[in-house]
Amino acid sequence: MLTRMAQEARMASRQLALLSEEQKNTVLEHIADSLAVQRDAVLVANESDVREARAAGMAEHLVDRLTLTEDRLTSIANDLRRVAELPDPVGEIFDEYFPPNGLKVHKVRVPLGVIAVIYESRPNVTLDVAGLALKTGNAVILRGGSETILSNRKLVEIIHLALKEKDLPAGAVQLIDSPDRKYVAELLKMHQWVDMLIPRGGAALHKYCRENSTIPVITGGIGICHLFVDESADLQAAVKIAQNAKVQRPSVCNALDTLLVHKGSAGEFLPAVVDRLAEDGVTFRVDEIAGKILSAFPAELVQPAGPDDFDTEWLSLVLGLKVVDELDEAIEHIAEHGTQHSDGILTRTDEHARCFVSLVDSAAVYVNASTRFTDGSQLGLGAEVAISTQRLHARGPMALKELTTYKWVIWGDNHIRE
Amino acid sequence: MLTRMAQEARMASRQLALLSEEQKNTVLEHIADSLAVQRDAVLVANESDVREARAAGMAEHLVDRLTLTEDRLTSIANDLRRVAELPDPVGEIFDEYFPPNGLKVHKVRVPLGVIAVIYESRPNVTLDVAGLALKTGNAVILRGGSETILSNRKLVEIIHLALKEKDLPAGAVQLIDSPDRKYVAELLKMHQWVDMLIPRGGAALHKYCRENSTIPVITGGIGICHLFVDESADLQAAVKIAQNAKVQRPSVCNALDTLLVHKGSAGEFLPAVVDRLAEDGVTFRVDEIAGKILSAFPAELVQPAGPDDFDTEWLSLVLGLKVVDELDEAIEHIAEHGTQHSDGILTRTDEHARCFVSLVDSAAVYVNASTRFTDGSQLGLGAEVAISTQRLHARGPMALKELTTYKWVIWGDNHIRE
Repeated sequence: MLTRMAQEARMASRQLALLSEEQKNTVLEHIADSLAVQRDAVLVANESDVREARAAGMAEHLVDRLTLTEDRLTSIANDLRRVAELPDPVGEIFDEYFPPNGLKVHKVRVPLGVIAVIYESRPNVTLDVAGLALKTGNAVILRGGSETILSNRKLVEIIHLALKEKDLPAGAVQLIDSPDRKYVAELLKMHQWVDMLIPRGGAALHKYCRENSTIPVITGGIGICHLFVDESADLQAAVKIAQNAKVQRPSVCNALDTLLVHKGSAGEFLPAVVDRLAEDGVTFRVDEIAGKILSAFPAELVQPAGPDDFDTEWLSLVLGLKVVDELDEAIEHIAEHGTQHSDGILTRTDEHARCFVSLVDSAAVYVNASTRFTDGSQLGLGAEVAISTQRLHARGPMALKELTTYKWVIWGDNHIRE
Repeated sequence: MLTRMAQEARMASRQLALLSEEQKNTVLEHIADSLAVQRDAVLVANESDVREARAAGMAEHLVDRLTLTEDRLTSIANDLRRVAELPDPVGEIFDEYFPPNGLKVHKVRVPLGVIAVIYESRPNVTLDVAGLALKTGNAVILRGGSETILSNRKLVEIIHLALKEKDLPAGAVQLIDSPDRKYVAELLKMHQWVDMLIPRGGAALHKYCRENSTIPVITGGIGICHLFVDESADLQAAVKIAQNAKVQRPSVCNALDTLLVHKGSAGEFLPAVVDRLAEDGVTFRVDEIAGKILSAFPAELVQPAGPDDFDTEWLSLVLGLKVVDELDEAIEHIAEHGTQHSDGILTRTDEHARCFVSLVDSAAVYVNASTRFTDGSQLGLGAEVAISTQRLHARGPMALKELTTYKWVIWGDNHIRE
């Protein structure tokens, strides 16, 4: 089954690569329109998924992630329309070069080809990824979570109908609609037809893909994120930024995990941040020095950090606190414990800001801002398929340009190599 | 042993990432100078390798590849000096973006980190790769062929001394100097410390790396290259281009493997190209129609193509010939039998040229030129570490820019996400 699916995706990708920007936008808008027309059918399918998930005992915050509502569907359709409005990177000509021998050389941006994405729960990902892929002329193979299978089937059915109505091949967007894991194992070996694999999920999925895929893999989405509160930081602002980074949406990868605090600020800042964030339900894992400064707080709120606590992506209302002697120690801690996702410095010392930016090698490095901005739409990409924390191909939020590659085009006048 | 080596490379890479362009150039020039000073020692080590290779029965054209001479060493040193003169991509700022919320966003180009390269025979690769890696602030782990181990040891010893004299860590350039293959197997699992793996070798090595590496792999260097001689081609020029592409250096990946000939040109072109290339010792594997046209030629020169012949990278003086009805058939043949390396059209019909360029999705697509130009120095990159035929990260010749990645830098004024 998968081989045929992958071959069809490859064939479809050759057709998609030749579409004009207008043709691609028309399809995206048509899918958005179809979602509105078929709203009830989608909601019925999704209700079945939700019912089964509840029956299987899924926690309510996870059920919420997989639930579609009228409003959410409208917002998904609007996202598709927004992607249609973004400029299409395909066809861009760059790195022109005219060697002395008279050749005319340039690169032109082309689609990656066939992309596979493995993800969980949220059915909006199905449309986000399909939309970004189609906009860049890529075919995509989707493998959503088994808990959303009925919703995803319905959504992909709508996409297929819309593609058909615009004379485009259904192979452009394909769903592995079986929960059987053997298909994931098979998919990972399809390098002949699939050009990039993005696993969106936890560390175990990434590890499995890294170890078993013969397709180039983009891993990411795992962030142990740090903020360093420097001696010169605006401490009131720092409390607000820490609160935003930790509390606004604790379950996501760009949420704050560890606050590193300069010893010169620790006496004033630590009690203030604990006071404020405790109101939001945050609890703290603290190093020895921070523990002494915070000894007046109740033990259930402020606990000594265990050996792995500074290497944990919390994804919940827990925050690590550590006092450091100086900037270098903060940078060293981030290098040792970070995941090269999003790390920042809060300071009014320009030299320290520049040093931090130059020495901290994360996908996103911040000065005086919350780590929560590592996000395609926040950073001007309009949307995202994933956030890469590896170094090859793309780092940080990946959107349209990151779904493309290039080819060299060389025009000669009957040139031969000397 | 390998874990320590990889950790040292990672540590060295953090130091290299901070060097100025001038510091990096100084080291490269110092290595080039040291090569001249230590010339005799290098030649002695290389002579031992050559002696052992001959004793083991290595074919003379392979012995030639591993042999260093005074001239070749001078040319290697000059290559290093040329890399020093190339502009350093590290530190380049791009994709600046100023969202309405007042954040200042840009990307900055940074080294990839630690690169591993597995290669064979030619000891000049050791210095090419080390030079390009150092110029871009990357550490590199080298695994040369067992037949060049004494030469490589000496060369890396010279690099180490030069690094030391410039106060740089020897960990920046490391050699796996054991022929034991278990070290390759170990290396492939070092994703924690190694950011990119480039296997330079045959299909079996690529397959082994793709299937076993947990490090992102760049595969490439395998080219089944095509030229399509259109009905309107300048046939005299076409013979010269075919000859250049096939004969100038038949053992390399951008050499021509198959000529596709429009039926309207075949009657005149095929006898002419066979006549001319036979003088250079080329023999031909031809499809049925070409066979009829060439029936006057001796059977040892012109043989019917076997079932795999159009899927073979010849790397020798053999050339496939096939007659096609039209442009589309040529494009289809390339899609089916090519390796997305280098493919071209010879035509005087501008519309056909544009159609070919748009529909053929190879790393390098040519109009009226030899495929032999797919090469870092020919295409303006100054040098190359490899030629990628995969689609992720880099396609075609890879040099300085392709050894870098980027990070996002976000400056705020105490910004929090709404």
